[in-house]
Amino acid sequence: MNRDNYLATVRERMPEPRYVHTLGVMETAIRLADHYGISTSDAETAAILHDIAKFSKPMWMKQIIQKEKIDPILLDYHHELWHAPVGAYVVQNEFGIEDENILNAIRYHTTGRADMSPLEKVLYVSDMIEPNRKFPDVELLRQQATNGLDGIMLACISQSIKFLIQKKQPVFPDSIHCYNDLVIKKGKVSE
Amino acid sequence: MNRDNYLATVRERMPEPRYVHTLGVMETAIRLADHYGISTSDAETAAILHDIAKFSKPMWMKQIIQKEKIDPILLDYHHELWHAPVGAYVVQNEFGIEDENILNAIRYHTTGRADMSPLEKVLYVSDMIEPNRKFPDVELLRQQATNGLDGIMLACISQSIKFLIQKKQPVFPDSIHCYNDLVIKKGKVSE
Repeated sequence: MNRDNYLATVRERMPEPRYVHTLGVMETAIRLADHYGISTSDAETAAILHDIAKFSKPMWMKQIIQKEKIDPILLDYHHELWHAPVGAYVVQNEFGIEDENILNAIRYHTTGRADMSPLEKVLYVSDMIEPNRKFPDVELLRQQATNGLDGIMLACISQSIKFLIQKKQPVFPDSIHCYNDLVIKKGKVSE
Repeated sequence: MNRDNYLATVRERMPEPRYVHTLGVMETAIRLADHYGISTSDAETAAILHDIAKFSKPMWMKQIIQKEKIDPILLDYHHELWHAPVGAYVVQNEFGIEDENILNAIRYHTTGRADMSPLEKVLYVSDMIEPNRKFPDVELLRQQATNGLDGIMLACISQSIKFLIQKKQPVFPDSIHCYNDLVIKKGKVSE
């Protein structure tokens, strides 16, 4: 299946604004992948398919999480978080994509995690700063996006955690592990 | 050993400003314990002794953490966090205090944790808002302190996490577990 087929398929599964967001993530991910010297083709595939399960029914996603033995603590958190790991499942099983790096980029695009690959970081960041996103400080993040991948990833995950705390929403533990990992590595580099 | 002995002992082990802070925590903890209907005597003891190990040598604290099989991931974090669990060790072994609630209040006064007891919350909050503390929003926290123990605990742990993120410092996982626990319980109460 090629790029145009992927785009046609995801377009069928989401409302127009989410498809427009997907195109924004795709453009941003290709640009950042190119800037950071990673595969633009992998970035394009991961970006097009990252929200494939965004509009899946929570009950079905719950069954997939249980059947596929995906981290069960996800079920203690809001089903908004489930579409990322379930999306990776769909991409593998329906689209036949076996590249673990692409699957992990989709799997962790909502929460982040410790030890993310460059592609995982590119997708996480692109999802947050693509041109259609509107939130305070998004422009600041965009300006920092090409100043270093760990730096922009740290800025984005920090923004996410602060936003959740502001809204009194739970913070999935992987997000704090992601944040700590980046902060501790940053400390080691600058020591 | 009574209150005055405790005070005399801790005074010997810390510089004057930290002793003044300890007195502030003591007064605040007694007031909040009284307000929330928990033992003011336990609050007083926990507050006086909470920083007993604050000026212990990191190398010695590290040995205690290893010898006493205290959570080893503490050693991956800044030694600023070590004085709380090591303080609980000192209070038990040197002062002979066996009350687990008092020991836990001291043990978790820096990080918080999920499922804190009312005494643990009172000490955490008092340590943060006692009259000598100066940081933006401390006055706001003081004003909320008697509006509900979970509410002020959530406000304080949120403030701590946001402060650490602002400073690009690691967040100990227990702090996020504490935050999530309070947010999830709050959600359940308001459902």
